[in-house]
Amino acid sequence: MHLALDGDGPLHAQTYRALRAAILAGRLRAGDRLAPTRVLAADLGVSRNTVLRAYEQLLAEGYLVSRVGSGTRVADALPARALRRGEGGERAAREGFATPRLSAVGSRVAKSMPPDRVSWAIPRAPLAYDFRYGEPAYADLPLATWTRLLGRRARLASVRQLAYQPPGGAAELREALAEYLARARGVACAPEQVVIVHGSQQAIDLALRALVDPGERVAVEEPHYTGFSLAAAAHGADVVAVRADAGGIDVAALAGARDVRLAFVTPSHQFPAGGVLTLARRVALLEWARAQDAWIFEDDYDGEYRFAGRPLECLQALDRDGRVLYAGTASKLLFPALRLGWLVVPASLVATVRALKAIADTGSATLEQLAFADFVRGGHLERHVRRSRARHAARRAALLAALARELEGRAEPVGSDAGLHV
Amino acid sequence: MHLALDGDGPLHAQTYRALRAAILAGRLRAGDRLAPTRVLAADLGVSRNTVLRAYEQLLAEGYLVSRVGSGTRVADALPARALRRGEGGERAAREGFATPRLSAVGSRVAKSMPPDRVSWAIPRAPLAYDFRYGEPAYADLPLATWTRLLGRRARLASVRQLAYQPPGGAAELREALAEYLARARGVACAPEQVVIVHGSQQAIDLALRALVDPGERVAVEEPHYTGFSLAAAAHGADVVAVRADAGGIDVAALAGARDVRLAFVTPSHQFPAGGVLTLARRVALLEWARAQDAWIFEDDYDGEYRFAGRPLECLQALDRDGRVLYAGTASKLLFPALRLGWLVVPASLVATVRALKAIADTGSATLEQLAFADFVRGGHLERHVRRSRARHAARRAALLAALARELEGRAEPVGSDAGLHV
Repeated sequence: MHLALDGDGPLHAQTYRALRAAILAGRLRAGDRLAPTRVLAADLGVSRNTVLRAYEQLLAEGYLVSRVGSGTRVADALPARALRRGEGGERAAREGFATPRLSAVGSRVAKSMPPDRVSWAIPRAPLAYDFRYGEPAYADLPLATWTRLLGRRARLASVRQLAYQPPGGAAELREALAEYLARARGVACAPEQVVIVHGSQQAIDLALRALVDPGERVAVEEPHYTGFSLAAAAHGADVVAVRADAGGIDVAALAGARDVRLAFVTPSHQFPAGGVLTLARRVALLEWARAQDAWIFEDDYDGEYRFAGRPLECLQALDRDGRVLYAGTASKLLFPALRLGWLVVPASLVATVRALKAIADTGSATLEQLAFADFVRGGHLERHVRRSRARHAARRAALLAALARELEGRAEPVGSDAGLHV
Repeated sequence: MHLALDGDGPLHAQTYRALRAAILAGRLRAGDRLAPTRVLAADLGVSRNTVLRAYEQLLAEGYLVSRVGSGTRVADALPARALRRGEGGERAAREGFATPRLSAVGSRVAKSMPPDRVSWAIPRAPLAYDFRYGEPAYADLPLATWTRLLGRRARLASVRQLAYQPPGGAAELREALAEYLARARGVACAPEQVVIVHGSQQAIDLALRALVDPGERVAVEEPHYTGFSLAAAAHGADVVAVRADAGGIDVAALAGARDVRLAFVTPSHQFPAGGVLTLARRVALLEWARAQDAWIFEDDYDGEYRFAGRPLECLQALDRDGRVLYAGTASKLLFPALRLGWLVVPASLVATVRALKAIADTGSATLEQLAFADFVRGGHLERHVRRSRARHAARRAALLAALARELEGRAEPVGSDAGLHV
């Protein structure tokens, strides 16, 4: 029998691969007796020990069997059809095998999201004027500080910090965030209510799983962040769009939609139109949730950036019935690829959301959490927000002046009092 | 009216807070007229400008209204009961409000996972002899190398790398892993089939969502990794336990259980009993999946660690029908807190699983992915595995010798040919 070595790596591995390929291709069949090691070694021009190692590996893997008195043979427990080399699903796809069955969620996702849309990445083709929103101004980032803090945490990491962690997140970060969010956004919470997540998107995913059954209704502002509606649709929820204007979501219209289980809102700076939810509507929205036994998901993705007056307090600060889930993210405060966010949940949901986070991924990466805790505690976050706000304010003034000059009243910019877009 | 400043921060912020507290507590009621700024400034002993800033903020937030000729008044659109200070869910919980309704998943999780069990963390109380499994030997870790690689990637990060990324993961890492997995584990896949995840647990979560509907059956080895069965139960799946012995899962018993949609197996080193799935059973398992239109989830959590002979190839290498999802993790190769893993899916599932990853969290953190690609490409991973294997082998020999001496045949260690536990 002809065996060709592929010349890649140690000789015993080459011999092993050549023999296995012969078995898988059917050139060596079940029950066939292999040449004695001495003979094959001479044929291949390798040492007998090399062939011995290859045989031992194939014996260990079950391709060969060896019995006293009958030498070494190809195992016969193996149906021939199964022994052709696997190629993952490539071959099945090529040969038009019936597509295996997916779950309802899997089927919805496979249908609704063509591969080229499955990305939050913003295309990077060069533009004459780049007015795209949703990303921070990268040149302003305190990356050197971040790198230093992360490197320090990695160097000083204890065994405890490298091991599996409680799924809610590192205590140091939950404490730092509870203080920061109270100070900067008026969030009223204990550190236990903070669950560290991989950005707002995971916050949305956990909330949908905890609170909404397939077939139930959720409400979104129109227009809105599609990351929520795609997730809700995949989850099997019925997505109802409620109009939003300069005063945020129209709560009267929301109340007119029946049986809504959860409303997804951006009170600080409506995404993407830019309105700010009025106090009267905030109160009405909380009242609606209480009366309907419904939940409110507050996405406070860029609440820190406000130019006219102090940043508005978040909606969660007014919630006295434990109906608001508050989500924030480091994507706009630092950079999106960090994938770090926080979900502040009512006390009644803490155990449930932590358990869902444990099931989803056991918890977020620890060293990044600790470095971000240092970033917050060391005042770097607030310093960065202050500086960015000043720079964005100057950019905003220049943009508004230029728009006024160029458009000469043919259009009017809206939603410019807060946030990172106009 | 008495207003007390709290002495914390700028005077205008103190004034704002004092006025808002008075409104929220009902001491200032809807329609009440506020004192002229000049008067209040004199009362509080602050500048008139300070009071003006506080009024402006309250006007912006909607607590106050101002009309020409009637001065500044407390807004009257606000129901009094809603205006007491919110306390998240704490108050609702304390006062025994009815618990708001959860989803079916949320209810199952809340019931089945008491808070003290919601953690993968292994208790760290000191033990005389620490035989616990599931974690690497931390003293062996090439942490200095890892820190250097991560720091370099952070320092050199481009704007593109800091922005949102495709959800399947960084191309550099998917390519490095496809090569590494082919070399070390025999995995047959294109880089496109690799989806970067937050460890095996997220791989499990994505697979359940893509492939299993609530009410359907999934099979696990008995005993098994509870991270799978907890996730499956939360998902609403019916979990069937199939016995496993020294030769891995009993495929005949599996085939006897009807309507199983997905089997969760650990062929390289049964977790936690330690068996290795025989080749005959591997072939029978693949045949079962094809015949039943079912899926196989291969958790290859420590396949690199094999002491008798070369590491066994993974089950995925033999899959020609695109039925096997292969999951690996850096938790055992580097450290658990890194939260980095990979799921290799058949070509027919690539778009679906990527979309589900996008919905779950938009994608994993980028700099860590790029640093891990460097770790693999630079040969650090294989060097580390080789060294650890040698050290673990010495430890294993010492352990087996000591057990033989101390137990004197009263017990026999099993499952010691592979992996990180005996």
